[in-house]
Amino acid sequence: MVARLTDSPVYAHLWTTPELTALLGEEARWQAWLDILVALARVQARAGIVPAEAAEQIALRARVEELDWDAVAAQTRATSHSTLGLIRGLQAVLPGTAREHVYVGATVQDVTDTWFGAVMRDVGAIARRDVRVLEERVLELAATHRATPIAGRTHGQPGAPVTFGLKAASWADELRRHGQRLVEGRARWEVGQLAGAVGALAFHDDEGVDPLAVRAAFCAELGLDDPGISWTTSRDRVAEFGGVLAMVAGTLARIGGEVYELARPEIGELRELTTPTAVGSITMPHKRNPEVSEHLDTLARLARSSAGVLLEGMVAAHERDGRGWKAEWAALPEVCLLVGTALSLARSLLDGLEVHVDAMAANLARHGDRLGSERVLAALSPRLGKHAAQDLLQEILAGGGDLAEELAARGIAGGDEVRGWLARPADRVAVAMVDAVVARGVS
Amino acid sequence: MVARLTDSPVYAHLWTTPELTALLGEEARWQAWLDILVALARVQARAGIVPAEAAEQIALRARVEELDWDAVAAQTRATSHSTLGLIRGLQAVLPGTAREHVYVGATVQDVTDTWFGAVMRDVGAIARRDVRVLEERVLELAATHRATPIAGRTHGQPGAPVTFGLKAASWADELRRHGQRLVEGRARWEVGQLAGAVGALAFHDDEGVDPLAVRAAFCAELGLDDPGISWTTSRDRVAEFGGVLAMVAGTLARIGGEVYELARPEIGELRELTTPTAVGSITMPHKRNPEVSEHLDTLARLARSSAGVLLEGMVAAHERDGRGWKAEWAALPEVCLLVGTALSLARSLLDGLEVHVDAMAANLARHGDRLGSERVLAALSPRLGKHAAQDLLQEILAGGGDLAEELAARGIAGGDEVRGWLARPADRVAVAMVDAVVARGVS
Amino acid sequence: MVARLTDSPVYAHLWTTPELTALLGEEARWQAWLDILVALARVQARAGIVPAEAAEQIALRARVEELDWDAVAAQTRATSHSTLGLIRGLQAVLPGTAREHVYVGATVQDVTDTWFGAVMRDVGAIARRDVRVLEERVLELAATHRATPIAGRTHGQPGAPVTFGLKAASWADELRRHGQRLVEGRARWEVGQLAGAVGALAFHDDEGVDPLAVRAAFCAELGLDDPGISWTTSRDRVAEFGGVLAMVAGTLARIGGEVYELARPEIGELRELTTPTAVGSITMPHKRNPEVSEHLDTLARLARSSAGVLLEGMVAAHERDGRGWKAEWAALPEVCLLVGTALSLARSLLDGLEVHVDAMAANLARHGDRLGSERVLAALSPRLGKHAAQDLLQEILAGGGDLAEELAARGIAGGDEVRGWLARPADRVAVAMVDAVVARGVS
Amino acid sequence: MVARLTDSPVYAHLWTTPELTALLGEEARWQAWLDILVALARVQARAGIVPAEAAEQIALRARVEELDWDAVAAQTRATSHSTLGLIRGLQAVLPGTAREHVYVGATVQDVTDTWFGAVMRDVGAIARRDVRVLEERVLELAATHRATPIAGRTHGQPGAPVTFGLKAASWADELRRHGQRLVEGRARWEVGQLAGAVGALAFHDDEGVDPLAVRAAFCAELGLDDPGISWTTSRDRVAEFGGVLAMVAGTLARIGGEVYELARPEIGELRELTTPTAVGSITMPHKRNPEVSEHLDTLARLARSSAGVLLEGMVAAHERDGRGWKAEWAALPEVCLLVGTALSLARSLLDGLEVHVDAMAANLARHGDRLGSERVLAALSPRLGKHAAQDLLQEILAGGGDLAEELAARGIAGGDEVRGWLARPADRVAVAMVDAVVARGVS
Repeated sequence: MVARLTDSPVYAHLWTTPELTALLGEEARWQAWLDILVALARVQARAGIVPAEAAEQIALRARVEELDWDAVAAQTRATSHSTLGLIRGLQAVLPGTAREHVYVGATVQDVTDTWFGAVMRDVGAIARRDVRVLEERVLELAATHRATPIAGRTHGQPGAPVTFGLKAASWADELRRHGQRLVEGRARWEVGQLAGAVGALAFHDDEGVDPLAVRAAFCAELGLDDPGISWTTSRDRVAEFGGVLAMVAGTLARIGGEVYELARPEIGELRELTTPTAVGSITMPHKRNPEVSEHLDTLARLARSSAGVLLEGMVAAHERDGRGWKAEWAALPEVCLLVGTALSLARSLLDGLEVHVDAMAANLARHGDRLGSERVLAALSPRLGKHAAQDLLQEILAGGGDLAEELAARGIAGGDEVRGWLARPADRVAVAMVDAVVARGVS
Repeated sequence: MVARLTDSPVYAHLWTTPELTALLGEEARWQAWLDILVALARVQARAGIVPAEAAEQIALRARVEELDWDAVAAQTRATSHSTLGLIRGLQAVLPGTAREHVYVGATVQDVTDTWFGAVMRDVGAIARRDVRVLEERVLELAATHRATPIAGRTHGQPGAPVTFGLKAASWADELRRHGQRLVEGRARWEVGQLAGAVGALAFHDDEGVDPLAVRAAFCAELGLDDPGISWTTSRDRVAEFGGVLAMVAGTLARIGGEVYELARPEIGELRELTTPTAVGSITMPHKRNPEVSEHLDTLARLARSSAGVLLEGMVAAHERDGRGWKAEWAALPEVCLLVGTALSLARSLLDGLEVHVDAMAANLARHGDRLGSERVLAALSPRLGKHAAQDLLQEILAGGGDLAEELAARGIAGGDEVRGWLARPADRVAVAMVDAVVARGVS
Repeated sequence: MVARLTDSPVYAHLWTTPELTALLGEEARWQAWLDILVALARVQARAGIVPAEAAEQIALRARVEELDWDAVAAQTRATSHSTLGLIRGLQAVLPGTAREHVYVGATVQDVTDTWFGAVMRDVGAIARRDVRVLEERVLELAATHRATPIAGRTHGQPGAPVTFGLKAASWADELRRHGQRLVEGRARWEVGQLAGAVGALAFHDDEGVDPLAVRAAFCAELGLDDPGISWTTSRDRVAEFGGVLAMVAGTLARIGGEVYELARPEIGELRELTTPTAVGSITMPHKRNPEVSEHLDTLARLARSSAGVLLEGMVAAHERDGRGWKAEWAALPEVCLLVGTALSLARSLLDGLEVHVDAMAANLARHGDRLGSERVLAALSPRLGKHAAQDLLQEILAGGGDLAEELAARGIAGGDEVRGWLARPADRVAVAMVDAVVARGVS
Repeated sequence: MVARLTDSPVYAHLWTTPELTALLGEEARWQAWLDILVALARVQARAGIVPAEAAEQIALRARVEELDWDAVAAQTRATSHSTLGLIRGLQAVLPGTAREHVYVGATVQDVTDTWFGAVMRDVGAIARRDVRVLEERVLELAATHRATPIAGRTHGQPGAPVTFGLKAASWADELRRHGQRLVEGRARWEVGQLAGAVGALAFHDDEGVDPLAVRAAFCAELGLDDPGISWTTSRDRVAEFGGVLAMVAGTLARIGGEVYELARPEIGELRELTTPTAVGSITMPHKRNPEVSEHLDTLARLARSSAGVLLEGMVAAHERDGRGWKAEWAALPEVCLLVGTALSLARSLLDGLEVHVDAMAANLARHGDRLGSERVLAALSPRLGKHAAQDLLQEILAGGGDLAEELAARGIAGGDEVRGWLARPADRVAVAMVDAVVARGVS
């Protein structure tokens, strides 16, 4: 019986994706660990450490469906050792000639850190793919709505107008930077580990064997880079990866938050698409909730939390430190699952995002001339001085006055002149920024 | 396939206990939710809201083994609603006359928050029980070793002697305070929720029905207190409970940390018991690792992290806010599982803790008279002045000098006099404090 | 030159209050530490450890304005010792007969932890006072608006109506629980520390002296409780206090968040009072921002962050552990300053809160009958079954239909009957809950 | 009076450095903000927005020593506006012809975000410099001690030997990666902000003016890159920078932790240099504490905490969101001060680090042959099979037996043969890794 609600078959779609579970889930993880043992045996066979036949046998039988997992679990508990159960389980399905050649000279951390390297590679690839798709989608939004007027809002209050494209372009630019980060860190993250007992690979230090060449071959066999030096307590790789994913989640939560707020019926400018069978509320039949937007925030909170655990884990002692390392066992896959799910949900959110251009216009109109106060201020500044103009406008607006009338009455500007300032399109710069972002976007 | 390593059948013993899984795991949670629906139907039957027969039918069939969970999962995904799948699954096993009387007037949060109340009650009870057992155990240690000399260590450096009993008494006193906290908060945590759509219980606002009486009966039926007012976005209860558990984990990690450090062979004063079948290292056959001690730190890190999510969740909007609430779905059970596991592991750690009194004495002897410098300082202070004495002692000790000889050579104190000061037992106050703590401990 | 923006004289009003600075600020802290040394000398004089005259001299001269703080700073740096600079600075202003009797047998942590105890006592008192004032104020709001209709909002979407009083009552009830927590923890927090070098008080272990009686007298002299046992690495007190304050900040941020969102002009139901000289924006003269509401969220974020540091600090090693302890030096005062400021700001926010009853009504009217769907569902449930009724209503509302017309057209209910359900007041239960909360509130 | 202990003149050396205070402190910050206003006026003069003479006047008088800071503070409080006090203070020292041309079209966030860009540039440069110096220093350590034997320790327990150089090389490699990160992010961090009211730069949208060219010139004038698009709520830059700094602090805390643990007298392998005037303990004259090592951990905890605040700030709403932004005001400078201080302290720690090669050797000898069990296992594996050999060795070692004798007695290997395995140097691979890291290190 699974203990975690996040692993419930009924709610799995909120906390993982099929793709991620196929990569990180129970069976996938065991198979990945077995594959690491196969790779180890193969390179050790090539180096003459184990017989080639044994390596072949291991490759043949190291399949998750072959092992007796109840026995693995029982042996894990009995030995209090993280992988001795696995070793014995694997030995049990091997011919006698191969049994002693499994998992030679490696430690638990060699297996799990190498798996971490593969996870960071594979989840990193998913993240790069999804970040790119999302960037493309919001760039489309930006291009389509480059000049669609919408109220700029600061401190929750409508201010001067911007364009919806500018908002989308800001998302795109942030996603573009995540794309950079996800590329830049690869050489640091996508490495294997073969450190042995204390990082000095002593087990492989045998006549005629070049342990570092074995490690390099081991990493290459698994499609990972060689780390150059053991990193059993050098956990910046994992901390950095978690941090980048948590930042990605932050951006998605920001987008979700924008949808959530602008989907308030009182605003009504954006709306999540809902499927025909979706039910918003079982007590209020009229409700249609921004569920995906909301969940992006949930996932980002939890992702930050797991990333914090990974960051704390950098302060590791000596040559192995189970305190932080075992916390990584929980936190690294967790942040991958959370952020991978967020990326998938964000794609569906953006694919179905309803943009209510009319509502954007109507809201701008509702707030009336007041939102144009910045432009009147700009126009009056050469005449009155910027700060004097501001004091005057503030006085008029605080009193609820009509800008054109009041300024005319005071002989400062003609009423039509003021109305002309207010009527002037405000989107020139916004559009130029959108175009600049689109131009430097994914290509 | 479970996605979380923490839910792996092979590693479950590190991240949960059978007792906790029986309380919080997949089947247990569903049954608890079904029991809540049963309680709801019962009190609604008594209030005349649903037919008594329907309530009986619901009570009869609302068993986790009755429902088609694949169908529940499919409907959950199709409706994007957290419990409509459950409702339909339950309806499917009910006779037609009862189907419409399930889950009347309640919302998802009524079910899950009421479950939270029950979880906090039941995990709180486990925590109180285990904290008490642990307190008793460390009080025994304290009493046994009330006068067992051990080096006091500050900043990682041996200082003046204390007694091992004083260390244990300090743990006990901290555990005692957790016991208080776990009692004090009960009235706040152990409550149900029946808020309806927006917290105003409108569904139950019918002629002849007293909605608040229904809620009170609903809570009582489940052994929970009535909250007085809906708390859908008032999440201090959950944040407080998580915070107390994370503090408990902090104490256990502190105890574990002490064992971890004092179990270094260079110190050798404490040691974890290991079982005969345990294997410390598969590459270094001589190793015997403080695994449980270490894991207590791991669990505390993760518990703090989940508690932080719960604290953040207090900033909730309006009458329901899925952003923080859904994060609680992951974080509240998580902190319960982590800290409950830590409590269980700490019990086994303390049950088998080896106290090496000889090593404690040997280490004290090894550091020699230097550790008595505080007592020499105290004795010299009336003669030289406290600060002048300290300057002098520091000068002597920095030069590596023997205190008795150097002080005698300077005519400040007789050599035997100094040796007398150094020989004086240093444990009088420590023992008195141990006795005081034992006296006010659990009884 | 101060390094922290939070200490800028220009921005101090955002990060502290005069009352808090008078309690925790540079001069106040030094005076508090000197007062602790005075208390120590006094009780030691009574116990015959130092001459009574020396204690008198110390009491006379241990004034912050007497010491040469540049010299204190220079000696602190030279000795790398946290209070030896202070000791030497104090000795410099004492007559020769008193110099040696300062700070006898105590350590840095005795001074700073005792100060922590006093800080927790005094800031706790401020918090209790302000929490109570806030509770009173929101109870008034709750009573005044017990039946003022406002849209209940879930997931950011207007749902069924509640009353504004219910919202305020929910705040009040949460504040009431904080009041409990701030009382319950006092016996744990308001303690002094006199532990000596390693917690065993060896310095005071002299003939004719009862060290524990000295400690008790020392604590009593300062208005603190005796801890019973040294707590140099037992940091749950500090962690708990920080956690409670962070929870208080969470509630204030929740209130601030509600104001922030409902002050959106598109909603317009609440508004911060602004002073006549306040300027919302220097580029948009019409702006009036919910600055205090917003800042409550800022303060809560930072408070959570500092509280997390305190929680982590519980995992302390041996008899003194500077790693967590020195982090407390920054984090405990910080959380006090942040939350104390938040309490003060929240008082001003609530004192000037504008409640726009008309806007609340208008928003309800704007959403029309849809918000009453819960009541129609409740009324139809006995007729159609709850779930069948819900499916039907959802179908009608998704199609944009008028409930009364559509239900009449289908022969399910008379149009006037439906309109009657919709017109029925929805506040009976909300009002009852408000009254219950008011009744159990502060008195 | 400063409210923060971290700003105390007496303790400033623990929480900042002179270099950092000169960059981030009160006066420096104000001057930086004034310089930004000067740059703004200059580029606006070139674009014809303000008179050239006014810009000259502003450049002449915008000096921190010119302004009346009490008045600035008073106006800041009166207007509740973050920079209107500054504006009025600056206007007060300007001739009438220039007063209106100050701070035209910009907002608070333009000033403070541009300052953030400069801070990230300058603190980034300090970090790069110090990380490089540290890397050089630990590479020297690594090279010097490439073959110095030391016990590898896992889970706090001595295992097989490594070399001290390997430990240092692991630090170096981690620092090298930080150097990469600090370079890679520069193009993202070192940008200015000129967004205007809502990010659309409407104020500068005047005939004959190219607002984006003005922004580019403004950034260039200050030595910053142009951001391409306003980033008022796109806070990944700040979050990433804080995250990288917190990771740097993590590495320094790891190094400090290693010193802290290995400086235990029971181990005695490393030791901090202390200055002649330093006083370890005022109650225990013999103490010499690893204060700097310890403080590195303290700083890392607080740095993680501030970095977490910055990460949370990414979830920002609309076009300006004071909730996260104002938290950045506290957290970004804080993380810079903390980590900059840590870098400086780490340099002094490593400059004076005592490496006790004899103690390393003695500890290895003390643990005897047991630490060589990995090598015996490796040697026996071809003979017995790896896992069978391990079971056998574990049985012998658990019984406390002598490896050579026991293996000889069982006829498995000759006693001298076993002793030969144990005597074989174990450092070949460690040395090779050290050399590889040195070869790819700073050059």
